[in-house]
Amino acid sequence: MKLFRFGDAGEERPGLIDDEDRRYDVSAFGEDYTQEFLETDGIQRLDAWFRVNMPACPNVAADVRLGPCIANPSKIICVGLNYAKHAAESGMDVPKEPVLFFKATSSLCGPNDNLIIPKDSVKTDWEVELAVIIGKRTAYVEEAEAMDYVAGYALLNDYSEREFQIERGGQWVKGKSADTFAPLGPFLATKDEVEDPHQLNLWLKVNGEKLQDSNTSDLIYKIPFLVSYISRFMTLLPGDVISTGTPSGVGLGLNPPRYLRPGDVVELGIEKLGESRQEAVAYEAVRKTTTV
Amino acid sequence: MKLFRFGDAGEERPGLIDDEDRRYDVSAFGEDYTQEFLETDGIQRLDAWFRVNMPACPNVAADVRLGPCIANPSKIICVGLNYAKHAAESGMDVPKEPVLFFKATSSLCGPNDNLIIPKDSVKTDWEVELAVIIGKRTAYVEEAEAMDYVAGYALLNDYSEREFQIERGGQWVKGKSADTFAPLGPFLATKDEVEDPHQLNLWLKVNGEKLQDSNTSDLIYKIPFLVSYISRFMTLLPGDVISTGTPSGVGLGLNPPRYLRPGDVVELGIEKLGESRQEAVAYEAVRKTTTV
Repeated sequence: MKLFRFGDAGEERPGLIDDEDRRYDVSAFGEDYTQEFLETDGIQRLDAWFRVNMPACPNVAADVRLGPCIANPSKIICVGLNYAKHAAESGMDVPKEPVLFFKATSSLCGPNDNLIIPKDSVKTDWEVELAVIIGKRTAYVEEAEAMDYVAGYALLNDYSEREFQIERGGQWVKGKSADTFAPLGPFLATKDEVEDPHQLNLWLKVNGEKLQDSNTSDLIYKIPFLVSYISRFMTLLPGDVISTGTPSGVGLGLNPPRYLRPGDVVELGIEKLGESRQEAVAYEAVRKTTTV
Repeated sequence: MKLFRFGDAGEERPGLIDDEDRRYDVSAFGEDYTQEFLETDGIQRLDAWFRVNMPACPNVAADVRLGPCIANPSKIICVGLNYAKHAAESGMDVPKEPVLFFKATSSLCGPNDNLIIPKDSVKTDWEVELAVIIGKRTAYVEEAEAMDYVAGYALLNDYSEREFQIERGGQWVKGKSADTFAPLGPFLATKDEVEDPHQLNLWLKVNGEKLQDSNTSDLIYKIPFLVSYISRFMTLLPGDVISTGTPSGVGLGLNPPRYLRPGDVVELGIEKLGESRQEAVAYEAVRKTTTV
């Protein structure tokens, strides 16, 4: 099953894509894709409900806005430097154990929303990543059992302002958390949809030029290890997003480095997890006042 | 007005402390202290409601468990090294601009709950801090207007596992996010309760010995600057917690360093913001299975 959310920002409704790629409005099920939905076996309940109610579910138009495929996760945990070539291009060693950092959940947006380049940003960069969505609360889970706590997977662009992240006095979260820096989706593919999450091509283009092109088989730390590892440091809640790191080909690693400017178009995708597209716009073009 | 939450973990109800230090159950108001409460002028609405309904509000017993004074904030943003002596004891320079890091919101707990020392922890440390609670959504707010977006203040203990934070391969969040690492409260003091948040004594004792003893006048970066600064990097939402940093006297800075063991009792307080008390317990004593 593939779950998506659609409608205006902040007022998204739940949708479902069936095995024949038809998109249905499942608002009548009465639940959004939240922590509570997942922790009360929502995926199984929705599946059973849909088998009965499918004929009454309206189709969703192709041109509707998509929202992030999960509503209000408690946290977005990112893994740094988890592809060897990306560590090298960032001028950093392959870490001896996973590097973890957070993105503010307020950075979440729909997969095809505009990327807002932050005010005073000169180094806004892209990162295609496979995101894991947690399905059940866990802490200190063993690697062998970790996949029982995964609901599914989604495509994430971990936008990063490299000056804010690296040159502004400490801790990467500063360059990872701007609004629209976490387009998530187009959909959450439930675990059963992806036979092997470590055999997926992933890629990213800027203005049509393919700059990232790799496969999740190159992940240094694999998903079961990551879920287990992170759960030693914090409790994972249903809906939490673990973004597994990006392969080489980010702007920071190009020679000379290359960063996004208004008008640039970023397209990305992961095999079985769909594609997304963001157009970069200047902060000044969307925010007319000092506060939003 | 002082707002607190009481009852079993996860099922807390809202309470209010009046000017004569009487504690009332205001469940009948019908709202918890959430993002939605704050962004719909909940403090003003509750104040008006309480003036009328006070006689019907039950008192709250002195021995009831307190929860975190805010429900489900979207993020806990911490400021690192914001007292000069603490930077020195940590072996770090005073930063040229604020160091920011996050704690997982799943680390929140009540002010007097037990501190659970994480599995395999050998360096669990304390940090008394003044926390600012955001009242209204803002981004790119000017320093001169920043206080308009503050709802109030609370006491926070920013527990930190120094090995996880510093010696485990990157980004402090790893040592800041364990369950019970963010006791918040006893109460949220609304802004009007604290004439000058930069003139408050704060202190922390371990087993009765005063180890931190300072005043918020020593903050390097003051609250209006911090709110403005952070809002350049991420949107602040109502209920978000900004913890402003800790003064000297943490375990890491003692010679030799000193860390918490089961049975240790940590007491802390900030003038006008009350006191809290945590007893350290071993992970093994509270968690009998691999998952919670």
